[in-house]
Amino acid sequence: MHEKGLLIVLSGPSGVGKGTVRKEIFSQPNTAFQYSISMTTRAPREGEVDGIDYFFRKREEFEEMIEQGKLLEYAEFVGNYYGTPVDYVKETLERGKDVFLEIEVQGARQVREKFPDGLFIFLMPPSLTELKNRIVTRGTETDDVIQNRLQAAKEEIEMMNLYDYVVENDQVERACEKINAIVIAEHCRRERVESRYKKMLEVE
Amino acid sequence: MHEKGLLIVLSGPSGVGKGTVRKEIFSQPNTAFQYSISMTTRAPREGEVDGIDYFFRKREEFEEMIEQGKLLEYAEFVGNYYGTPVDYVKETLERGKDVFLEIEVQGARQVREKFPDGLFIFLMPPSLTELKNRIVTRGTETDDVIQNRLQAAKEEIEMMNLYDYVVENDQVERACEKINAIVIAEHCRRERVESRYKKMLEVE
Repeated sequence: MHEKGLLIVLSGPSGVGKGTVRKEIFSQPNTAFQYSISMTTRAPREGEVDGIDYFFRKREEFEEMIEQGKLLEYAEFVGNYYGTPVDYVKETLERGKDVFLEIEVQGARQVREKFPDGLFIFLMPPSLTELKNRIVTRGTETDDVIQNRLQAAKEEIEMMNLYDYVVENDQVERACEKINAIVIAEHCRRERVESRYKKMLEVE
Repeated sequence: MHEKGLLIVLSGPSGVGKGTVRKEIFSQPNTAFQYSISMTTRAPREGEVDGIDYFFRKREEFEEMIEQGKLLEYAEFVGNYYGTPVDYVKETLERGKDVFLEIEVQGARQVREKFPDGLFIFLMPPSLTELKNRIVTRGTETDDVIQNRLQAAKEEIEMMNLYDYVVENDQVERACEKINAIVIAEHCRRERVESRYKKMLEVE
């Protein structure tokens, strides 16, 4: 008997550096997560390899998968589809391996509906703390700049609602350490461990 | 403005190795927790220092503290009192530092009532997994031994109920790594971060 894997979802506002953090995590030799490769209809860029960077698919194929419910989440950006094939995620979790998704905020919302006990991590721009400092010290920014950033910060805080954890992306290495710690901790959560132990004793 | 510290409570069945794990954690140079020194009426043992290993107090002094509600938790073992002075814990948390308690299961129950949002970690003997293996392989133990261990295991699982996390003490270093990860993760929990961010923006 083995424990099922955890579904780890890293998301956050666009431009926050999700891809950089994900690459750093998967560059570490001891990473125990399985990265879930996304599917897209956009053309491969220089150096991108099918089945490594993305599954590159034709638009018709992608739409067929949508119709057949074979995508855990998907979205369209500037005329191209991006999505996560669900079968691969489910099979990997069943094998007891943690699966790591790095997706947009809309996608994370779709995943939450299908995997409510996934582990949802919100990557936060570090600028909120900086913003606070600027407001306190004053005079260094125009009121407009501050007002715009304040508005953006409020929207970011609203987005957090769906998530279990918030990691500030002040330094990539620190953010990765925190994400690794969160996964270790989640594997120790009493609810998960208790039910596993109880099952063990049922053998009697 | 700073975040309040976390109250970390390490407990578990007697003999599980709580003291060993606690000592290992505090032997690490980068430990950011503050260890809460217990108070006791027992005599110092060879090499023990007042204010480092314990606060050594007379029975009357201890009972006066109980009456005045100055103990976060206390218990009596073989004729001696052991307890945690509450003022030190509260002051340290207010200063934004995490406080680490290593206490018996009865004490942890008392602390949970007073600090419901503390971080409660149950240190679990590794023998449950071993036990399972023995039952599966059979023949290596008498039925009595297995029955006694099964009973103990069931009681340990019952005890877990109060706790947020369960850490198996299979190896001291691994247990410490998990405890450190749990504390890092808890500092990233959305509920904690969100309210801090919201307060930041109230400055406006």
